[in-house]
Amino acid sequence: MIMSAYQPVTPEIIALLQSAVGADAVTTAPAELQLHAKDQSHHAAHLADVLIYPTRAEQVSSVLKIAHQHCIPVTAWGVGTGLEGSAIPVFGGISISFEKMNQIVKIYADDFQVTVQPGIGHKDLNAILARQGLFFAPDPGANATVGGMLANNASGIRTVKYGASKDNVLKMQVALADGTLIDVGSRSVKQSSGYDLLHLFVGSEGTLGIITEATLKLVPVPSLMSAVVAAFETVEAAVETVVAVRGSGLDPAALELIDAAHCHMLRETEGVDLSDHPTLFMEFHAAHETTLQAGLEAVQAICQEMGALSFRATTDTTERKKLWHARHHSYEIMVRSHPNYHFFIMDVAVPISAYPALIGYVEQLKRESSVIAYMIGHAGDGNIHVEFPFADEAEYERCMVLNGLIIEKALELGGTITGEHGVGMGKAVYMAKEHGPALEVMRAIKQTLDPKGILNPGKLFID
Amino acid sequence: MIMSAYQPVTPEIIALLQSAVGADAVTTAPAELQLHAKDQSHHAAHLADVLIYPTRAEQVSSVLKIAHQHCIPVTAWGVGTGLEGSAIPVFGGISISFEKMNQIVKIYADDFQVTVQPGIGHKDLNAILARQGLFFAPDPGANATVGGMLANNASGIRTVKYGASKDNVLKMQVALADGTLIDVGSRSVKQSSGYDLLHLFVGSEGTLGIITEATLKLVPVPSLMSAVVAAFETVEAAVETVVAVRGSGLDPAALELIDAAHCHMLRETEGVDLSDHPTLFMEFHAAHETTLQAGLEAVQAICQEMGALSFRATTDTTERKKLWHARHHSYEIMVRSHPNYHFFIMDVAVPISAYPALIGYVEQLKRESSVIAYMIGHAGDGNIHVEFPFADEAEYERCMVLNGLIIEKALELGGTITGEHGVGMGKAVYMAKEHGPALEVMRAIKQTLDPKGILNPGKLFID
Repeated sequence: MIMSAYQPVTPEIIALLQSAVGADAVTTAPAELQLHAKDQSHHAAHLADVLIYPTRAEQVSSVLKIAHQHCIPVTAWGVGTGLEGSAIPVFGGISISFEKMNQIVKIYADDFQVTVQPGIGHKDLNAILARQGLFFAPDPGANATVGGMLANNASGIRTVKYGASKDNVLKMQVALADGTLIDVGSRSVKQSSGYDLLHLFVGSEGTLGIITEATLKLVPVPSLMSAVVAAFETVEAAVETVVAVRGSGLDPAALELIDAAHCHMLRETEGVDLSDHPTLFMEFHAAHETTLQAGLEAVQAICQEMGALSFRATTDTTERKKLWHARHHSYEIMVRSHPNYHFFIMDVAVPISAYPALIGYVEQLKRESSVIAYMIGHAGDGNIHVEFPFADEAEYERCMVLNGLIIEKALELGGTITGEHGVGMGKAVYMAKEHGPALEVMRAIKQTLDPKGILNPGKLFID
Repeated sequence: MIMSAYQPVTPEIIALLQSAVGADAVTTAPAELQLHAKDQSHHAAHLADVLIYPTRAEQVSSVLKIAHQHCIPVTAWGVGTGLEGSAIPVFGGISISFEKMNQIVKIYADDFQVTVQPGIGHKDLNAILARQGLFFAPDPGANATVGGMLANNASGIRTVKYGASKDNVLKMQVALADGTLIDVGSRSVKQSSGYDLLHLFVGSEGTLGIITEATLKLVPVPSLMSAVVAAFETVEAAVETVVAVRGSGLDPAALELIDAAHCHMLRETEGVDLSDHPTLFMEFHAAHETTLQAGLEAVQAICQEMGALSFRATTDTTERKKLWHARHHSYEIMVRSHPNYHFFIMDVAVPISAYPALIGYVEQLKRESSVIAYMIGHAGDGNIHVEFPFADEAEYERCMVLNGLIIEKALELGGTITGEHGVGMGKAVYMAKEHGPALEVMRAIKQTLDPKGILNPGKLFID
């Protein structure tokens, strides 16, 4: 990809865009460009030259045709909750906001499916689906758009039971670099018909095509849920419990770890009822009360066997939300407790058996460096986030050194450079190390599908 | 792909192959070529020119290097249980049998993972894994190799709970057309690191690369299982029950439909205790007795509400196997009941809500054509197989006409031309109709990864 070949967004290009999608869908207002210049990551902002608000797929197609013909970069924008800069238009050009493509196209209740436009927030979607007793399971925390979640293969706390975004999508309409609209996947839940293009586009971060519609897999809202919070003397004991719970066939819907430092901070600043120990938060879903109770008894037996210091469980909705409050609000509590700090959240994942080694390594780095850091993890998936508050450039640089060391360690342990935040800008430099010669296959596919390199340049690959 | 450019397998090529992988791994013995000329499909046999028995990935790589340099077709062979001719070397050349690459490389019990060579049979694998209380869930019935299952994205009766092959693989080593060995995927269960090459190769039927190693996701063997068999007056009532059971959150491990004609044949020929009605076979897995019982009560209530004519349920292992006997052996019973017949099994899948329309259409075709046909379906997935016994060419032609009509109907209902048997030779002609312009993306990827078209030519695409 020869990025120097990009053409500027001239008044003629703006006129072409306006004529293609309507003048009211095109803006160059600095305030609006500024609002779409940066996601929630630590990466620097960058302005697009023009912002488009399409209302339908054909407009996305038209914009891409113009961009392709004139060699102008195109970056898709959901709602800016990304954590690796995937939506930052680092080469300027055209940004496409999906703010106005936020509708449900059709609910297929009998099929447990919904077709949506990509700009709908997953929380907004679930609020509507709840009326039908259904929900879209992946939950990255923030109210990310479905398009952003799919482009990034976002996951979150319920992935241990329900899978990541890639596991919860059946079909998509995608606009290719030259504007061609294609359908990939099928509303049939089983399909063995040719290459799995659906999963090629999922997680490709807008570098191979832009998602214009998606049909999602839904699951019934569980009739009953229980919550469990258990503290352990060591991370090893906590992780052994994770393995035992998963091995028992109990099928937890969430299995989260908060480290001792995080628990300490939560208690000290908010009076949350946690001790300074690695603590597991679990959630179980069931259709029947007896099932739920039997499950809880089994979990308690496992936790006791693993030497849990404390064990609290409930099936009551109010009590459950209270128990989980610390987990659900841990990030904002941390932010509140560190006024005047910026935050950098790193993301790696390893096979579950390597989780204690990874956590132990992070703890060792923290001790040796005296950098402030908190660990919070989707333990059931071997996924960990290290949250680094930093006040200035020097502290940021120290965090980045640790970030690099933790990534190297995750790879050494058979893991990945990113479990759910994506590659974006920050992880591109580690791609060769993770993928070896397979990276050349990715580049070849990129070259084939986007020969001019107009789709979200500056992401995934280091040129 | 210019297939006329293929070079013959000369004595010089044989010598090169022998020198690369050892003389004892290379054979041109007609009897052996004959054994690898045809799978279990209705497609015509074709002989390879030479058969290779590698014992390790590097040998597969060496063979591909030679084939790539000399432009010779290469087809991978598992154990020949395919149903669409994917393993038939229709252009001759080199066939690679994975018979001697059938070992477990490593069991990662704590990670619920196993790394295997591609030639291991999934039943053989599960017999070994059972000692650790784990199993690889996809079960296509026959003892297909893991490599064949992955290349074909096979699934089977437990897909409704555990997913297809594509959902149960984490990492693979793949030999590309030029012999380069790459790793795709990760042993980390979560990965958002670049393009999902893993799923691009899964289901590509050996046309993009050849799988030389795979790390599979395992699940704990359920402590308890129950079986349910229920008959209904109409297919509609049976399918409504399927939807209700799935919507209840009961999470069945199998949800199968056998049509009235099949039940009739099973009773008449083998005395199986079934009535001439559409019958559902269900299986539920649980960790605890109370869970299992609660589930069974809920299922019974649903079946009664849907007007089930009969309902039998058991948690006893012997009784369960007896109840399911008719389903597990339905194919061989059908074969035994039609001596001197050949069989053609077709495979389509639709969204579950369209299942009654699909089944109704097949019943209508049967009535109008008086062709003998039996339906057996993975109803929980909207997947149906129509089994056509035929005695001669004329009957075969009549089956093929119905096959075409059913495929068209499945597409019209929002489904797919193949749910689990793959495209192979028989479905290639329908690819454009299912995928539209996305087929050109598939072709472009094929051209990029296999520019000489040496990998399993004659499959997936009609040239």
